[in-house]
Amino acid sequence: MTYCAAAVLDAGIILVADSRTNAGVDNVSTYSKMHAFGDAGGSQFIILSAGNLATTQSVIGQVKIDIRHGADTNLFNVQHMVEAADYLGDVSLEQQNRHEGAGFEASFIVAGQILGHKPHAYLVYPEGNHITTSEETPYLQIGELKYGQPILDRIIQPDISLETAALCFLVSMDSTMRSNLSVGPPIELMVYERDSQNAERRYRFEETSSFLRDLTLSWDNALKKAFASLPPISWSGQWDQGRREGVGEPRADDGPGPRN
Amino acid sequence: MTYCAAAVLDAGIILVADSRTNAGVDNVSTYSKMHAFGDAGGSQFIILSAGNLATTQSVIGQVKIDIRHGADTNLFNVQHMVEAADYLGDVSLEQQNRHEGAGFEASFIVAGQILGHKPHAYLVYPEGNHITTSEETPYLQIGELKYGQPILDRIIQPDISLETAALCFLVSMDSTMRSNLSVGPPIELMVYERDSQNAERRYRFEETSSFLRDLTLSWDNALKKAFASLPPISWSGQWDQGRREGVGEPRADDGPGPRN
Repeated sequence: MTYCAAAVLDAGIILVADSRTNAGVDNVSTYSKMHAFGDAGGSQFIILSAGNLATTQSVIGQVKIDIRHGADTNLFNVQHMVEAADYLGDVSLEQQNRHEGAGFEASFIVAGQILGHKPHAYLVYPEGNHITTSEETPYLQIGELKYGQPILDRIIQPDISLETAALCFLVSMDSTMRSNLSVGPPIELMVYERDSQNAERRYRFEETSSFLRDLTLSWDNALKKAFASLPPISWSGQWDQGRREGVGEPRADDGPGPRN
Repeated sequence: MTYCAAAVLDAGIILVADSRTNAGVDNVSTYSKMHAFGDAGGSQFIILSAGNLATTQSVIGQVKIDIRHGADTNLFNVQHMVEAADYLGDVSLEQQNRHEGAGFEASFIVAGQILGHKPHAYLVYPEGNHITTSEETPYLQIGELKYGQPILDRIIQPDISLETAALCFLVSMDSTMRSNLSVGPPIELMVYERDSQNAERRYRFEETSSFLRDLTLSWDNALKKAFASLPPISWSGQWDQGRREGVGEPRADDGPGPRN
């Protein structure tokens, strides 16, 4: 399994990816799922990948070959980020369709900034279609996304700083790793500053990273404190209110027969 | 979709269920997913249900009929909770198998206390097999479980109070409802006190419940405060460290060609 996410903010783009791949719990490996393309000063593209490893490797390989051979459509000659998403969807479908049967699906996030344009990010589904971010939902996720989504919903807004978003993504990754063993370090994080045209701020947090360990502990403590700060349950009259309003079934222990 | 959960604690059992059912977003209804069986002073069984509504209704109906007709096996003559789980699995399979095709699956949690025994809970899968809780994992979930799991992992331990567990389940439900529109109020909560042999402490929180609204706001604030209390990201040397250790790929922006 995989967890990758990207956010497009006023200040730039944040991308995060774990590096664990597995085919069963006894076949676990480490592969980077973050791939950057672009020369400093020019258009920048970062691709995150999730799904069948053979497919994602073939897709990234084809993307590189198309650039090298100057294919009619390649990352370095698209005019808009949506064309990059179209292209990636085509390449992904082509690679998936080389095999019969199920299980070859892959999803991608392609993000970056084409020279002279605003930063953008697209999520490319296994079917090749894609969605982008909005002001209301400035982030995209692929892979094992649910455990880590609640904190993104609460924190990620277009006007937060790149540092805040990066920290939020690491917390989101921490929640995911805690609940799904097949998502694991090293964690890769990319901080792309808007108009920098430079994808140099790339960080890797190893399993042994003391920062990652401290973050796990700090977040665990902070969450427990947050929970302890909640007001106690107000029990009074809740059940009676429900009965009066006649919503749903009355208690089924009023008799074993089906209701008429 | 549905979210239901149950925890077996030293002090008793907590169960929670939402009440929303849907077949597409334009066909949303309210049904209780919590069904209690047992006379005060005797064995107590509470069943939570998730999945195809026709299947879960048929299963609960059959459970009631079997009790009323004194079937060879019914909830009121099982000797151990695991027999109740076996029985529920059989009834569930029987109901699912009445229809051809996919989409009739249902999952159940059966929990309670048989007179003279300890409290127990079992999760019954659509295939009819089941698992129970342990000291390390004292809770079970069915339905849309991932959004609400991280807080359970951190808070639910066998020695916490019923009140703490109940509040934690409501927080878990809140995170789920926030991220999945098809999970919704009224929220039903059962507090079963160990050896009480009485399932009277059943509460229903309506959409209009001021307590539920306050809890949503309080938890949102507490989480944001928790996040704000985290130490800032330590950037220094993380990427260089990753490079030195040679894990995964180097940055792919060193050239478009595949690695040799």
